[in-house]
Amino acid sequence: MTSEEIHKSIYSMGQTARNAAHALAQLSAEKKSDILRAMAQGLRDNAAEILEANAKDIKAGEEKGLSGALLDRLRLDEARVHAIAGGVDQVADLPDPVGEELEQTTRPNGISITKLRVPIGVIGIIFESRPNVTSDAAVLCLKSGNATILRGGSEAIHSNKAIAKALQSGGEPAGLPEGAIQLIPFTDRESVQVMAGMDKYLDLIIPRGGKGLIEAVVSLARMPVIKHYDGICHAYVDRDADQDLAIAIIDDAKTQKPSVCNALETALIHKDVAAEFLPKLAERLNKRGVEIRGDERVREILPDVKAASEDDWSTEYLDLIISIKVVDSLDDAIAHINEYSSQHSEVIITTNEAAAQRFQSSIDSACLFHNCSTRFADGEEFGFGAEIGISTDKLHARGPMGLKELCSYQYRINGEGQLKDKARQENL
Amino acid sequence: MTSEEIHKSIYSMGQTARNAAHALAQLSAEKKSDILRAMAQGLRDNAAEILEANAKDIKAGEEKGLSGALLDRLRLDEARVHAIAGGVDQVADLPDPVGEELEQTTRPNGISITKLRVPIGVIGIIFESRPNVTSDAAVLCLKSGNATILRGGSEAIHSNKAIAKALQSGGEPAGLPEGAIQLIPFTDRESVQVMAGMDKYLDLIIPRGGKGLIEAVVSLARMPVIKHYDGICHAYVDRDADQDLAIAIIDDAKTQKPSVCNALETALIHKDVAAEFLPKLAERLNKRGVEIRGDERVREILPDVKAASEDDWSTEYLDLIISIKVVDSLDDAIAHINEYSSQHSEVIITTNEAAAQRFQSSIDSACLFHNCSTRFADGEEFGFGAEIGISTDKLHARGPMGLKELCSYQYRINGEGQLKDKARQENL
Repeated sequence: MTSEEIHKSIYSMGQTARNAAHALAQLSAEKKSDILRAMAQGLRDNAAEILEANAKDIKAGEEKGLSGALLDRLRLDEARVHAIAGGVDQVADLPDPVGEELEQTTRPNGISITKLRVPIGVIGIIFESRPNVTSDAAVLCLKSGNATILRGGSEAIHSNKAIAKALQSGGEPAGLPEGAIQLIPFTDRESVQVMAGMDKYLDLIIPRGGKGLIEAVVSLARMPVIKHYDGICHAYVDRDADQDLAIAIIDDAKTQKPSVCNALETALIHKDVAAEFLPKLAERLNKRGVEIRGDERVREILPDVKAASEDDWSTEYLDLIISIKVVDSLDDAIAHINEYSSQHSEVIITTNEAAAQRFQSSIDSACLFHNCSTRFADGEEFGFGAEIGISTDKLHARGPMGLKELCSYQYRINGEGQLKDKARQENL
Repeated sequence: MTSEEIHKSIYSMGQTARNAAHALAQLSAEKKSDILRAMAQGLRDNAAEILEANAKDIKAGEEKGLSGALLDRLRLDEARVHAIAGGVDQVADLPDPVGEELEQTTRPNGISITKLRVPIGVIGIIFESRPNVTSDAAVLCLKSGNATILRGGSEAIHSNKAIAKALQSGGEPAGLPEGAIQLIPFTDRESVQVMAGMDKYLDLIIPRGGKGLIEAVVSLARMPVIKHYDGICHAYVDRDADQDLAIAIIDDAKTQKPSVCNALETALIHKDVAAEFLPKLAERLNKRGVEIRGDERVREILPDVKAASEDDWSTEYLDLIISIKVVDSLDDAIAHINEYSSQHSEVIITTNEAAAQRFQSSIDSACLFHNCSTRFADGEEFGFGAEIGISTDKLHARGPMGLKELCSYQYRINGEGQLKDKARQENL
C-alpha cells in the first residue's frame, strides 16, 4: 500500500469510529450487555474460522523461525477461543461504569452542577502478538462506551482479523454500531505513525506490548498515551519485620509467577536484621531456584551470591532472579526505591505502624503495600472485575486500570436563567 | 548558550525539582499555607524590584514595537503586584487537596485498599507574555504539592525572574523546599524542546498560551500535556424556548466578555421559532454592536446580515461577532455541535426537559448548560476556588481545572500476610 492509501484508509476508519462513539454513548447498560453476549456467541460460532486463520499465522511464524515462546503466545485452540468468549461474557455481567453521578453541587446562584462519568470516545489499541488482545481490549472499551481502532502485530494478523470479524458479525445483529470495533487489516509499520498523528479522531492510545513499542508510540503520539511500562517492584524488610512473613511475601511475590509486572525484582533489608534474615531468605529462594544478586554487604553475609551491578537495580528480570541490598534505614530504603523504582508496586514488611505509614507516604509509586504480596496489584484483586493493564503513568489512570479508568467525565449544569451579569441587561 | 549548556541546565533543574517534589509531598496543609502566605509577602516586599524589572521589559517591548494590547498584558503596577500577592493569599486559604481519601475497600481476602489523592510530582508550565502566570501557576502547583519548572516568554523575562525570585526569597525562610519553584532564566527556543523531552523529571506539561504554542508542545512532548484550546461555544434555541431568556443568555454569553474561552461563538435556532425569534435577537445584538454572520435561512429572515462562510462555524472570534444558523431539529443542532465544537461548553435554551436531557446526553463537550450562561464554565463559578485553566482534553482533567485536577492518586494496601498463593508455600 502507498502512504497515501494507508493514511486515507486509517482516517476513514477514524471518522467511522467517531460516529460509532456517538452512537455507543447513547446505548443503555442492558443494550451493551446484550451486544457483548452476542459477541461472545459470535466467537463461539466462528471458532472453526478463527482456528483456521490462526493455523495460517502459526505456519507463517514457523517459517519465519519465531521462538517457541512467541509461537505459544500466538497459538489458539478450541479451549482458548472458548476462554476468550467466556471473558466477553464476564465483562457483559460487570456493572456499567457510564452515567454514574460522581459529584453534585448547587452553587449560591442556584445553578446545579452534576459531574457524570461518560465514555472517552475513540481509543486506539496498538499491540503485539497475542491475538486475544483483539477481543479483550475491544470488549472492555465497548463496555465503557468507547469505540476502538485496533492495530495488532503482523504475526497474528489472520487470527486478529478472524476474531474481529467474529465479534462484529456476532454483535451487529444485537445492535453493535457500525465501526465500533475496527481492526486495521494491514500491518505496515506506517500505520502506527498515522494513528499516532490522528488526534482528530483518536482520544487516547494504549500501547500493549514491550518497552520498544511504548517508546515508539510515546514519541509519535499527539494524543494522550497511557503507558504500561515495567514493574520494578521492591520489598523492604524493616528492622521490625516478622521475618517469617517477610520470607513468605518475598517468595510469593518473586516466584509464584515471575513473568508478570507485579512480581518482585529487588529486596532491601535493614542492616540490623540482615545477618539473621538473609541466610533464611537465601535458603527459601534456593529451594525455588532463584538466583540472588547482592550488593557488598549482602555478600559479606552470603559469600556465594553473585555481585549485583548498577544495572541490576533498574532491571525487570521477569525471571527467577532477585537483586538484594542491605540498607541503613527506612529512609535509605525509601530513597533507593524513589531512585530506581518504575513507580508500580512496593511493599514494606514491618510490625511498626509508624514505619509503614512513613513508607507509604514517602514513595511515589502507584501501589504501596504493607505486609502482603505485591502480586495483588491487579484489577481483579482490586475488585475492578477486569483490567486493561496496570498504568505506570500518574495522569488519568494510575495502577490497575479498569472500566472506570476507560471513562472521562462531563459536567451538566442546569439553571433557571442565571447570567454572569444580570444587572448589565436590566440597565440596557 | 550552546545546546549542550541548555540541556544540562534544564536537566539539572529537573533533578532538583524531583527532589523538591518528594519534599513537598511530605508537607502538611498548614505548612504549605504558611509558605504561601510568606510568598505573598515576598511579592509585596519586593514590589519595587518587580516593577523595576517590568519597566525593562516594557522598554524592550516598546523598542521591539509590540502592540498596545501586548504591552498592556505585560505591564505591571503597584496595584497589579498587590493583586497577584492577594491571589497567593487566597490560594493559601483554600482547602488542601492532598491526602483526601477517595475510596476505601476491604477485599474478601482481608486486604484493605485505600485510594488517596497525592501530588502529581513535577509540572512544567510553558507560557507566553503575562508575567502574573509565573505566580498564579506556581502557587496552584505548590498548593497541590507539586514542584514547577516555569518557562515564560522572552517579552516578560525580567518581570518573570523578579517574580520568581520574590516567591522564592519569601517562601524559603518559611520552609519552601529548594527547587520547588524554578524559572528557566533564559528564553532560547530550544528550552521548550528540552523540557518536552525530559519525561524523566517532568510528569506533566501545561502550555498556557495560543494555539501555536500548544501545538508545538503537543508535537514534541513525551509526557502528558493538558491542553486548554479554544472555546467554540454554542447556544441552541429550542422550539420550546423561553425566547426572552434565550436573548438574555445569548447576550450575556456573547457580549459580557467576548475575549474569553467560555464566551459564545455560534447560535443555532430551531426553524419553527426562527421567524419570530431572530428579529428580536438581532435587535438586542445590534444594541451591543455585535456583527451577525448568518446562513441562508437566517438571511431570509434577516436580509441585512453578512453571509457566514464554512470557516465561520469553526472560528473562535473572541470578539463582538456571532455566527447564526437555522436548524431543522434538536438532532440537527446536536450533529452541528458535535461536528464543529471545540468540546468546551454548549447551552440549550428550552422549557422542554426531555429536549434538555437529550442535548446534554448527546454532546461530547466538557460542560453542557441548560437555561443559563456558558460564562459559568469557570473554576471559580464551579466552586473550585481557583483554576489553572479550562481543559479541552478528555483524559485526567476536563473542563475547569482546579487544585484537585492538579493531583494524581495512589493506592495504599494494608494486609496481614496475605499471599497470592498460600497453599504453594505450605506445601513447600
